[in-house]
Amino acid sequence: MAQYGSRLIVPIDVKKKPWEQKLPLHNRWHPDIPPVAEVKVGETFRVEMVDFSGGGITQDYTAEDIKHAEQSIVHYLSGPIRVVDEDGTPAKPGDLLVVEILNLGPLPGDEWGYTATFDRENGGGFLTDHFPCATKAIWYFEGIYAYSPHIPGVRFPGLTHPGIIGTAPSLELLNIWNERERELEENGLQTLKLCEVLHSRPLANLPTTRGCVLGKIEKGTPEWEKIAREAARTIPGRENGGNCDIKNLSRGSKIYLPVFVDGANFSTGDMHFSQGDGEVSFCGAIEMSGFLELKCDIIRGGMKEYLTPMGPTPLHVNPIFEIGPVEPRFSEWLVFEGISVDESGRQHYLDASVAYKRAVLNAIDYLSKFGYSKEQVYLLLSCCPCEGRISGIVDSPNACATLAIPTAIFDQDIRPKNNKVPVGPRLVRKPDVLKCTYDGNLPITKNPSTST
Amino acid sequence: MAQYGSRLIVPIDVKKKPWEQKLPLHNRWHPDIPPVAEVKVGETFRVEMVDFSGGGITQDYTAEDIKHAEQSIVHYLSGPIRVVDEDGTPAKPGDLLVVEILNLGPLPGDEWGYTATFDRENGGGFLTDHFPCATKAIWYFEGIYAYSPHIPGVRFPGLTHPGIIGTAPSLELLNIWNERERELEENGLQTLKLCEVLHSRPLANLPTTRGCVLGKIEKGTPEWEKIAREAARTIPGRENGGNCDIKNLSRGSKIYLPVFVDGANFSTGDMHFSQGDGEVSFCGAIEMSGFLELKCDIIRGGMKEYLTPMGPTPLHVNPIFEIGPVEPRFSEWLVFEGISVDESGRQHYLDASVAYKRAVLNAIDYLSKFGYSKEQVYLLLSCCPCEGRISGIVDSPNACATLAIPTAIFDQDIRPKNNKVPVGPRLVRKPDVLKCTYDGNLPITKNPSTST
Amino acid sequence: MAQYGSRLIVPIDVKKKPWEQKLPLHNRWHPDIPPVAEVKVGETFRVEMVDFSGGGITQDYTAEDIKHAEQSIVHYLSGPIRVVDEDGTPAKPGDLLVVEILNLGPLPGDEWGYTATFDRENGGGFLTDHFPCATKAIWYFEGIYAYSPHIPGVRFPGLTHPGIIGTAPSLELLNIWNERERELEENGLQTLKLCEVLHSRPLANLPTTRGCVLGKIEKGTPEWEKIAREAARTIPGRENGGNCDIKNLSRGSKIYLPVFVDGANFSTGDMHFSQGDGEVSFCGAIEMSGFLELKCDIIRGGMKEYLTPMGPTPLHVNPIFEIGPVEPRFSEWLVFEGISVDESGRQHYLDASVAYKRAVLNAIDYLSKFGYSKEQVYLLLSCCPCEGRISGIVDSPNACATLAIPTAIFDQDIRPKNNKVPVGPRLVRKPDVLKCTYDGNLPITKNPSTST
Amino acid sequence: MAQYGSRLIVPIDVKKKPWEQKLPLHNRWHPDIPPVAEVKVGETFRVEMVDFSGGGITQDYTAEDIKHAEQSIVHYLSGPIRVVDEDGTPAKPGDLLVVEILNLGPLPGDEWGYTATFDRENGGGFLTDHFPCATKAIWYFEGIYAYSPHIPGVRFPGLTHPGIIGTAPSLELLNIWNERERELEENGLQTLKLCEVLHSRPLANLPTTRGCVLGKIEKGTPEWEKIAREAARTIPGRENGGNCDIKNLSRGSKIYLPVFVDGANFSTGDMHFSQGDGEVSFCGAIEMSGFLELKCDIIRGGMKEYLTPMGPTPLHVNPIFEIGPVEPRFSEWLVFEGISVDESGRQHYLDASVAYKRAVLNAIDYLSKFGYSKEQVYLLLSCCPCEGRISGIVDSPNACATLAIPTAIFDQDIRPKNNKVPVGPRLVRKPDVLKCTYDGNLPITKNPSTST
Repeated sequence: MAQYGSRLIVPIDVKKKPWEQKLPLHNRWHPDIPPVAEVKVGETFRVEMVDFSGGGITQDYTAEDIKHAEQSIVHYLSGPIRVVDEDGTPAKPGDLLVVEILNLGPLPGDEWGYTATFDRENGGGFLTDHFPCATKAIWYFEGIYAYSPHIPGVRFPGLTHPGIIGTAPSLELLNIWNERERELEENGLQTLKLCEVLHSRPLANLPTTRGCVLGKIEKGTPEWEKIAREAARTIPGRENGGNCDIKNLSRGSKIYLPVFVDGANFSTGDMHFSQGDGEVSFCGAIEMSGFLELKCDIIRGGMKEYLTPMGPTPLHVNPIFEIGPVEPRFSEWLVFEGISVDESGRQHYLDASVAYKRAVLNAIDYLSKFGYSKEQVYLLLSCCPCEGRISGIVDSPNACATLAIPTAIFDQDIRPKNNKVPVGPRLVRKPDVLKCTYDGNLPITKNPSTST
Repeated sequence: MAQYGSRLIVPIDVKKKPWEQKLPLHNRWHPDIPPVAEVKVGETFRVEMVDFSGGGITQDYTAEDIKHAEQSIVHYLSGPIRVVDEDGTPAKPGDLLVVEILNLGPLPGDEWGYTATFDRENGGGFLTDHFPCATKAIWYFEGIYAYSPHIPGVRFPGLTHPGIIGTAPSLELLNIWNERERELEENGLQTLKLCEVLHSRPLANLPTTRGCVLGKIEKGTPEWEKIAREAARTIPGRENGGNCDIKNLSRGSKIYLPVFVDGANFSTGDMHFSQGDGEVSFCGAIEMSGFLELKCDIIRGGMKEYLTPMGPTPLHVNPIFEIGPVEPRFSEWLVFEGISVDESGRQHYLDASVAYKRAVLNAIDYLSKFGYSKEQVYLLLSCCPCEGRISGIVDSPNACATLAIPTAIFDQDIRPKNNKVPVGPRLVRKPDVLKCTYDGNLPITKNPSTST
Repeated sequence: MAQYGSRLIVPIDVKKKPWEQKLPLHNRWHPDIPPVAEVKVGETFRVEMVDFSGGGITQDYTAEDIKHAEQSIVHYLSGPIRVVDEDGTPAKPGDLLVVEILNLGPLPGDEWGYTATFDRENGGGFLTDHFPCATKAIWYFEGIYAYSPHIPGVRFPGLTHPGIIGTAPSLELLNIWNERERELEENGLQTLKLCEVLHSRPLANLPTTRGCVLGKIEKGTPEWEKIAREAARTIPGRENGGNCDIKNLSRGSKIYLPVFVDGANFSTGDMHFSQGDGEVSFCGAIEMSGFLELKCDIIRGGMKEYLTPMGPTPLHVNPIFEIGPVEPRFSEWLVFEGISVDESGRQHYLDASVAYKRAVLNAIDYLSKFGYSKEQVYLLLSCCPCEGRISGIVDSPNACATLAIPTAIFDQDIRPKNNKVPVGPRLVRKPDVLKCTYDGNLPITKNPSTST
Repeated sequence: MAQYGSRLIVPIDVKKKPWEQKLPLHNRWHPDIPPVAEVKVGETFRVEMVDFSGGGITQDYTAEDIKHAEQSIVHYLSGPIRVVDEDGTPAKPGDLLVVEILNLGPLPGDEWGYTATFDRENGGGFLTDHFPCATKAIWYFEGIYAYSPHIPGVRFPGLTHPGIIGTAPSLELLNIWNERERELEENGLQTLKLCEVLHSRPLANLPTTRGCVLGKIEKGTPEWEKIAREAARTIPGRENGGNCDIKNLSRGSKIYLPVFVDGANFSTGDMHFSQGDGEVSFCGAIEMSGFLELKCDIIRGGMKEYLTPMGPTPLHVNPIFEIGPVEPRFSEWLVFEGISVDESGRQHYLDASVAYKRAVLNAIDYLSKFGYSKEQVYLLLSCCPCEGRISGIVDSPNACATLAIPTAIFDQDIRPKNNKVPVGPRLVRKPDVLKCTYDGNLPITKNPSTST
């Protein structure tokens, strides 16, 4: 008789702290973090994970935990998981690791999540120059749906996915990362004009021993010290996959990850109940604990066969993936455009990031006419299943980006009409998001055209 | 008995030159270009249009016409069309003009199109640093499908749309455009680092009397001279809509355009049989002549009601739109990622344009393993119904962009597999695209990791 | 240079009578009706067609033309069209004819249609025992959309398709048809209990010289007399395809038709702008004139290879087809169930027809609460893109059929809610359908549970 | 802080027998079966259930359990569940009970199911005259996907749903059921000709004390004896919902059930991992144990407001429902037609059941050309997400039914092609389904056109 069900290889107890879990977690990328589990190709297995903050952000109706969130500890990952073939031979550098997401979801008994913006001095977000305060909204799950007491009038099915899935880098690849990000951190403000427009800081997150958790490597040992000083932060997505925050990596997806070390040693975490393209508020999906049911395959020599490096070394590759068949289905979308002209009216050159910022700002202002605060819409667009597209990237000097919002998630008709949005005392969607004050000194970007 | 059918308000004879058409065309934006037709709200009407080049690019199997394409004459637009309400009162500045696309398609008897890349010294494209030569592929239409003798093995239904639809700017708005684009043209290379990565030139296309066509304004008159020196080029999308190249503006869509002048005076053109997000090869959709069936409505005061300006003036707005119900339906997608690290390995800061460039380059290299030349794939990804998304824009320093390709458009299975892509003498998809030599001096970006 | 555009092989002038067309039409199936055109495999060609009534039903706002419609003349078909391969060899009996629908639509200048129910004594419909009167609604097309002044508050995109496409039968197949249908006509009422529940009459439509049109065969000749007495009526779908009324045979579909005579000699007609599953009102789609753009292929020996006969002879086969990629997309559906218990409360055995009748009756009563007359809903459900499914066919004694209606076609929210449908003086959707009196004697089925 | 997660109101231990569960199950419909749990409107709760056979059908690789399956015990249901409003007032007769399916799935640790056909003398199926033997296929679940060792080469995502959900009937309604089904059982063969074509027996399943389980009513008591003799079998769907086997009742669906007794007292069971329209093999979905997460609402007086009775009493109504947003998405379908002519060539009158039988037979024969046994295809079409439609129901004398199969579920291209299906030694899909011999005496329907 055939096997069925999935073997639980990484269990999580959400009542415990990240460092109290049965199998140790880790929050850095490094080739020397030992695997905590091993799986065979073809086997169905289950990986559980804490939320990215390891429980640091709570269900309490306050944004204080967000304001003072410790950034050095993100993201707590489950793994590394070593993958071997049917003969027990591990995946080898140069292979492609195929990870199929058979199922996923919240952990039973922990069916809630949160969306937030960090304080501008503590991480910020895509629009942190407009929204400098720490804010938070709590979401509760009803099966496939999420709703929030802090953003009334919306409810939507989740396009649930892991924000992070990635293989362990080789030492060579790790060095490439550290070098190029250090270069940015040191010289970026002088050379990259986009930094002036996207105000979140720091420019990069370099290795730091602070907050570092390295799985089976015991803290305080010389080995720990060495690895902690080298190990890459998990914030950005990179050649190994990692924190790509691709919202469509949901049920039924297949990911083809390059293998850089023996066994592939992949890790995963940062589960999202739902996220919009861009995850604009940064702490921006509906963050939660969760589980994945996975099955792996190895394509021997697949990196060479399928991935062409693009950059100075054979390691400059990116994963590819296939989308699964059960994404939520919407048929009506309201779409906002943005062009690469910033809030001051300055023209940028084919800059999709500036264009997308403008599209998101347009959408926020529009939806705030329907009774929402701008903070509510900012969080909503960060976590609902909206689509952010690069529509035109060649018509100099304007890139054109679009943000498409499914109208069915609202309990009111949000389309423009001749008989107008509700007038007189506008419908107010109360209560509002949880919010802290901003005590920093950085200048706030105001929309020059608005008095509020 | 009710009326039916649509009134033809702008007829086109594709056998004639742009300047020989019954109603004069225009290729600039300016408030003083007089309308050529008037429509009432609620009325169904038909607008025909030449292809963007006005017939300059031909069906001949050569890319010479692309190489020497005159850029100053693009895009020939049909209009302006003045819109009045049922009482005959025109749309007013501050109103929203609602344009519903009831139907559209190629002109009967002219069911073909082309996709091309300009020579690097004559317009280029998103990847012109990699592909500096002028290339061209001819597409033929079989009802809803397009196929090309120059890119064998693919066939897909069109997501047909007008690349350009926009209202006439007011003089004030026109001045804003000219000023900010001149500033970019003059100072951009020094201040905007993206220009170093996206190699197409010029940075902006400023007003020029060369090639200028102004509808009913007769060439050579003092009025013509004045307007021609002021009138904005049609290349970029702007506050009035314009060349947004949004592929989803297809059958059943509704566009809400801001009105800046009496009557709205909207124009349209640059019909695309199909386009991928980004239109990466620049002359990048399947360009064709075509027709639109439209119906208009006016939302009085709608600009104020629905559009919040974002910028120094009340004119800094963008259109919004709704997507129609009959887009081609695909269920299987292969997705390529890109992060904001360029070909030299340099780290950029949350730059979605760089990330998208990398995603497109990854896709080109991947698909070229299936028997295609890179030029074939570059043109294909520019015009097939692929989706370009800003997946993550907050995980410093890497933006993550994705390019999703519907697998059903290929006559072979393009997914990675254990039993590999065809080996030995690879399947060659012949013939190739039409191609000219590149005679310029600008350095070509080579992928350092590839020998070819 | 390649060819493009489609060759017009059957032109129609809608201002002329069916018998005045350039190429003669026909309204019977017979092997001896000579082809009017020939096409090669791979060639793109255009076939135009009158509406099924050949103009007998008009745009006039009256149902009198429906009440007195001459049933013997339906359906006027375009063809037969002979298909040959690249060497000029015709399709042969035993081959499969592949017909790809590249495009289709109304004839330019004739963008309107109608939906109707015949008088109970003159054809009836699925619910003729409840709705015995002749009724009619006129629809006007706005590009992809249809709306009717007689059924206010709905508008929907068409899933346009030919009601009829079929190959010519061989004499042997024709004889099989005539024999089995005569048997039914003669003995059906005695032996088939379904006839008591589905009240439309006659049970079958046997060959008749009345109203017969045979293409190039001149009326009054001995040949005409002979063929007219043998030729099958076009009302039912049969082994050759024919009047299958499958709403999904739209743009991009491929039909695999069995070939029974040299050249295949296929004909087509009865174009529908839109139809619901079942076409319940009988004259029930949005009937119109129209055009098809087609491409053919021949699979030699394909009948044997792909179609297994099911019945006493090798001719007892059915076509198969593939659905195209551009059907209108709806995401929200309200679904009505029916079980095989009839209006008198009598239990039927796994009878999907009775179950579907009940589902349609349920839907009519439900929607009539939203301001519509029952006649309006009956016509609407016959022609809008609703889906009729056999959900359960094994749970003795009840078959369960469902009717799913896309909610987006209405201008109001038709879902049940706690705050009820509009009460007091109900919203009346006026004007109503065009309607004649019923002057017949057959008993009307009343719903025993309703007083109205 | 808000509540989240769902309260488990009916727990199941699959290692125990149906009668050993913590809360008693029941397998009959009767107003006097007491509720086992109570829920408030708005509350999220979880109901677990055994498979329809209560574990009688096992994972063993044999069909003997199917051959000798005890039909009197089906279906074991969880409930009844009493529903009250926020004030504690129960749902009342005449209300509508709204049940929203928030989530559902297999029970953890029991991720397998089966599809089967009963022996012709023991229940049969839609095609039991062709396939008289008991057969069985075991399916294993990998997250959203199912695959079977007995039907190689297919894998598909489940459209999971409860086969049964229904409210308790009032005594009056129960009497109506028993009376009309007894009438059929006694006189059906004489009067209903469909019985001759659909060979499964008995015609109806009348109340019987054999196998009867009545929840909290203790077996052997006088009360039990009385109720057991009256209580309706759960096989057919009826006015209360019940065994409707509507495959689209999946995640996110909302069901509007009529209320006939105080508290509504709804029950559910017969979970299906996946099912095709019609559930043609009878034991025909992928049958499994499972769970539902639900939320209820009450529309006071909603039966009168929204449901129009159709039949002799106000109780002759049917539920309505809305489809959820996360159904698996397929874009390519191969479609088979059937007309109402039976295997002997006899003409039936607008009979959708006969037409659908023909469509299914056509599909089975077609797919068996691709290496499958006919039994494999019969089971597959019963449980895969195929769509069965009533395409035409008015074109006398032929109803036209269609069966649409998503091509993506196969690991081979099943469309007809010029280069034919695999010839020579055909690809054999081994192993085959589990199968018993048929030892009965009823005549087998052979397809007269085939020798095999």
